[in-house]
Amino acid sequence: MREGGVGSTFLGVLVDVLEFRPSPDQYAWTFGGAPPVATVKPGTLLKLWTEDAFAGKLRSTEDLPSASLQMPDVNPQTGPFHVVGAEPGDVLAVHFVDIEPARDWAASSTIPLFGGLTGTDRTPTLQPPLPERTWIYQLDRARGTVAFEASDGEFHLELPIDPMHGTVGVAPPAREVRSALVPDTFGGNMDTPEMRAGVTCFLTVNVEGALFSIGDGHFRQGEGESCGTAVEGAMNTTLLVELIKAGSAQTPAWPRIESDTELMVVGSARPLEDAWRASQVEMVRWLSELLGIDQLDAYQLLTQISLCPLANVCDTNFSAVTKVPKSLLPPVTAFGGMHTYLREQAATL
Amino acid sequence: MREGGVGSTFLGVLVDVLEFRPSPDQYAWTFGGAPPVATVKPGTLLKLWTEDAFAGKLRSTEDLPSASLQMPDVNPQTGPFHVVGAEPGDVLAVHFVDIEPARDWAASSTIPLFGGLTGTDRTPTLQPPLPERTWIYQLDRARGTVAFEASDGEFHLELPIDPMHGTVGVAPPAREVRSALVPDTFGGNMDTPEMRAGVTCFLTVNVEGALFSIGDGHFRQGEGESCGTAVEGAMNTTLLVELIKAGSAQTPAWPRIESDTELMVVGSARPLEDAWRASQVEMVRWLSELLGIDQLDAYQLLTQISLCPLANVCDTNFSAVTKVPKSLLPPVTAFGGMHTYLREQAATL
Amino acid sequence: MREGGVGSTFLGVLVDVLEFRPSPDQYAWTFGGAPPVATVKPGTLLKLWTEDAFAGKLRSTEDLPSASLQMPDVNPQTGPFHVVGAEPGDVLAVHFVDIEPARDWAASSTIPLFGGLTGTDRTPTLQPPLPERTWIYQLDRARGTVAFEASDGEFHLELPIDPMHGTVGVAPPAREVRSALVPDTFGGNMDTPEMRAGVTCFLTVNVEGALFSIGDGHFRQGEGESCGTAVEGAMNTTLLVELIKAGSAQTPAWPRIESDTELMVVGSARPLEDAWRASQVEMVRWLSELLGIDQLDAYQLLTQISLCPLANVCDTNFSAVTKVPKSLLPPVTAFGGMHTYLREQAATL
Amino acid sequence: MREGGVGSTFLGVLVDVLEFRPSPDQYAWTFGGAPPVATVKPGTLLKLWTEDAFAGKLRSTEDLPSASLQMPDVNPQTGPFHVVGAEPGDVLAVHFVDIEPARDWAASSTIPLFGGLTGTDRTPTLQPPLPERTWIYQLDRARGTVAFEASDGEFHLELPIDPMHGTVGVAPPAREVRSALVPDTFGGNMDTPEMRAGVTCFLTVNVEGALFSIGDGHFRQGEGESCGTAVEGAMNTTLLVELIKAGSAQTPAWPRIESDTELMVVGSARPLEDAWRASQVEMVRWLSELLGIDQLDAYQLLTQISLCPLANVCDTNFSAVTKVPKSLLPPVTAFGGMHTYLREQAATL
Repeated sequence: MREGGVGSTFLGVLVDVLEFRPSPDQYAWTFGGAPPVATVKPGTLLKLWTEDAFAGKLRSTEDLPSASLQMPDVNPQTGPFHVVGAEPGDVLAVHFVDIEPARDWAASSTIPLFGGLTGTDRTPTLQPPLPERTWIYQLDRARGTVAFEASDGEFHLELPIDPMHGTVGVAPPAREVRSALVPDTFGGNMDTPEMRAGVTCFLTVNVEGALFSIGDGHFRQGEGESCGTAVEGAMNTTLLVELIKAGSAQTPAWPRIESDTELMVVGSARPLEDAWRASQVEMVRWLSELLGIDQLDAYQLLTQISLCPLANVCDTNFSAVTKVPKSLLPPVTAFGGMHTYLREQAATL
Repeated sequence: MREGGVGSTFLGVLVDVLEFRPSPDQYAWTFGGAPPVATVKPGTLLKLWTEDAFAGKLRSTEDLPSASLQMPDVNPQTGPFHVVGAEPGDVLAVHFVDIEPARDWAASSTIPLFGGLTGTDRTPTLQPPLPERTWIYQLDRARGTVAFEASDGEFHLELPIDPMHGTVGVAPPAREVRSALVPDTFGGNMDTPEMRAGVTCFLTVNVEGALFSIGDGHFRQGEGESCGTAVEGAMNTTLLVELIKAGSAQTPAWPRIESDTELMVVGSARPLEDAWRASQVEMVRWLSELLGIDQLDAYQLLTQISLCPLANVCDTNFSAVTKVPKSLLPPVTAFGGMHTYLREQAATL
Repeated sequence: MREGGVGSTFLGVLVDVLEFRPSPDQYAWTFGGAPPVATVKPGTLLKLWTEDAFAGKLRSTEDLPSASLQMPDVNPQTGPFHVVGAEPGDVLAVHFVDIEPARDWAASSTIPLFGGLTGTDRTPTLQPPLPERTWIYQLDRARGTVAFEASDGEFHLELPIDPMHGTVGVAPPAREVRSALVPDTFGGNMDTPEMRAGVTCFLTVNVEGALFSIGDGHFRQGEGESCGTAVEGAMNTTLLVELIKAGSAQTPAWPRIESDTELMVVGSARPLEDAWRASQVEMVRWLSELLGIDQLDAYQLLTQISLCPLANVCDTNFSAVTKVPKSLLPPVTAFGGMHTYLREQAATL
Repeated sequence: MREGGVGSTFLGVLVDVLEFRPSPDQYAWTFGGAPPVATVKPGTLLKLWTEDAFAGKLRSTEDLPSASLQMPDVNPQTGPFHVVGAEPGDVLAVHFVDIEPARDWAASSTIPLFGGLTGTDRTPTLQPPLPERTWIYQLDRARGTVAFEASDGEFHLELPIDPMHGTVGVAPPAREVRSALVPDTFGGNMDTPEMRAGVTCFLTVNVEGALFSIGDGHFRQGEGESCGTAVEGAMNTTLLVELIKAGSAQTPAWPRIESDTELMVVGSARPLEDAWRASQVEMVRWLSELLGIDQLDAYQLLTQISLCPLANVCDTNFSAVTKVPKSLLPPVTAFGGMHTYLREQAATL
């Protein structure tokens, strides 16, 4: 663990900086249950390195999941970080300043009986699994693309990168410890492409210190993450962490995300309609608070303006996003303007 | 029935034109089971008027669904039209040239025990229904907006219109007749905002003559159509209808849509993940055909590029869209270039 | 059509008797949409022959579904029968006096992409279908058993017969016509083993004449009908049909069944919890009416006494049964004692 | 902790006996994550006392859940017990010798936004919660009944008791810790009435020592546990624990139960069809092993003989049981005859 708590002055504000690259024995594999790798104050800038979802074990098209992966050791987490002063009921704000590929390649694969378009351990059928394959994507850093190479035949396609994190989460409530494969109210493995640089993710704190971690970087991912694995790659990620004490705003029942242009909620459940319902009911609550209208009016308004891109339909819980473009709303201030504040902080770095 | 089969010459092609505005006794309330209102040749331009989903019965905020609607007489269809030469296994192409509000107002409402965030007849609970309310949206044609007025309080918001049709469908297979509230393989009440002017919808023909109809115009709609009813309004809609005979391309298992910029599939089922699976498996088939790659490679590629906006999570079946931006693909030609052809035809009108 | 309207006197009551064995061109393949094969008065005794679900096309283990079946021509119905005086809102009572195998063999099979433990057209996956096989069960009428013979190896097992009908239904509401593969509020392909001789099935009438039919006899069936097809066989079935005019009791929202020992409701929907919810909410309504207690008390009581055997988890909708043993209740009289009346009528035959 | 390791001789076998009644500070609230309260050798007889699901906080109809319960402190567990020699991949056999009400009353209640026939935190709707009520059931030990008293009105009903445990489980795999409200592969809050005296429950061991616990006794429960809480009461429960080392039989993917007359599997998931699929696929595996037939033949046979009573449709995961009557099978020996052995052991006590 290389850890550097170097204070420096920006805009007259003292910002602590923590750099952290875990060694393999420092990975966390769960939300909750792992000891913190570091303690940070609200306002700290974290410069983190995250290993890919396969723990770096798929490095060529010859490396197949059933032989190379050591289940359940997937989605290694960088963290958890103990946030000074965070108490149950507070809201943690995690602002992604930057998410950059840390390697020049990434991997994806079909894992037997895992994925959206196959029987799984949760939707068991008697059919044999789909064939196991691994795809390696080469990054062209200059062009900002990754290359898809068909496993069978000559087909080749360059795709723009759109880096994001599949997992960002805090320790769960009710004394639970959950696998890093699980998305739920505490965040976790939501696998939404919306978790990209420039957004702020708001998570309700369940345990003292919040114990948040990130991982599962994707150079890019389609909505739904159909086959179960995106373009999985190691990342260098910079984020700012802040704390909103209980009482100053609604306590989110589900993870909320704010970007410069949108308000979002991520719900996670099965069946998929329940993930959607969770994100919608939470957005009705949020719009109702922000706009000062009653829940039925918020329900009606949301009906006409919501965008609902899916996140994942392959994980332990499925995740659905409800999104409202700010351009359709009157000016609103969420969480006391935290996103704008963090955006400004980030701009000075 | 005012029907005008006026032939005129465009680009050296003789285009038949049919104008049709149904009288109330001419509405169809089902897909299948209703006699055709007219017979048209492939290549015909249809200029249609469609009544709103409420059959025009909600005209003020005092008109509440349980008193004003005559269930199950909702989603009145304009049609069905018998397409000359259409046989089971053929593919009908419906190109939306123009969708224009036909009135200066539209309506939306909460219908007791209907909608996405309430118990319903399909997801019954013992809780009392949500309150019944009607919202009326005034259209500002010059600004291209509709006005949301909160039912409780003073809140007011102008929203850009984005006209679309909730229903477009053909007669179902297997001798079935389905309510105009149902989306399924035959299209129907898919309620996706993607069904806007400029797109071509491809539907597999199940019965001789196809018997297609449209209805349920929305001045705008959010993804999911949360409360069950969009900004429901009468429409003046112009469309071109064409026929692709069996054998020249894949027969779609689910409705496909092509726009200038995207390929789309709409799946409809419950639970919602099955609607999504349907749209995804069909897109895997489609990409596999268009790109000449095997299904596993198509599955992998789709995983990284698919967009998955929900359509409705309130109807008899839920509908999910899988969408692929053409900008990410090499040039592809679907259905022999039918969309481009119809787009060009429309440009000459 | 051999039809014999022979009146005879039982217990001083004039009972009309109708015998009917459809020829193949007389089968109905839908609920609704088919013309009645006969008109009967309430109180009529029907002696019916029903073909098996495969329309008699699977007669040896060499007959495989994809080659031998002519989709969607499965579940041929005997009927529909027009019941004199039946109007929407009335309740039709169908009492099964006797259900007897009409042949000495029955068939079952795995149909590609159909069944509970495989991907299907409604739950599509990319896996190849399970192998297609047909099993033939020989009936030992004296012992009352059918013989299971493993398709691979020497395993053999005699199983007691327990004859029942997979389908019993009336024409649907809302102008719909549904395939004989569909279970819903109108009954239809519920596939519950509870539909055996001695029970009375109560169905709400949706169209004039009710238009009820039966079919899909099973020599026996497990709960869930896992692979999609039971021990499918032709049947000689005797039933009494009666009519309860609207207003004298609750109108069932879902099919109800009464036996000498139990009250039952069958709900049908997807996902399966919604089928269960439908059957439960309807039973809460029923208990509340029968016992004169409020819905919350009925909910509490049902929680402690309900039996919930599944019916089918393979059809277009899934079906779940909620069952209450009469032995746990004080004496109750449902539908004015109709079941007891029909039981007594049947005893005199 | 009163703990008595008293050895005594039965049938020439030395049986260790452990009596344990936890004090409130000794309750476990999770599967996994709690330190063992005792270490026991395979073959030990455990005489346990379990508190009710409400932690004894609902003692009159005036005690309402939102005021009296201290969430998430429900379903207090007696245990966990560390079983000497138990290693991941082994199978733990828990044989219920006796389950006796430990008090003369039990409680049930409607908890706001919890239960099967209401919106919940997992199936959120905008409707207000159902009213909160508590019912107290008096036990008549001589008659073996509990008394249901309507909360509104005079209705009264005596119901036979049928004592069972809602929860029996081991520590989960993959480093997880789960709330005692959760059923999953590790057992847990399955809430099936089949978990009564006389059965043996087989659970795959995930962590060294297995760490099993029990709790959530029900004086009786309907299938589905509709309102979310059964007739919840403290229990005196006697059980025998045994260990089957890996390699001697199939490792269960899901909890299996054997009674004198039936083989059972409990699957837990959402949506409910996936819980059912899990129990069915596991039973196909089991029948295939026991009968020496291939999976397709086992699938076909199961289709005709399975009983599928629901367990719970209210918990974090729903649970469904697949049950096969031994009377329909040739003689089979599961887990080397462990159930018979434990039954005989129990008979000597």
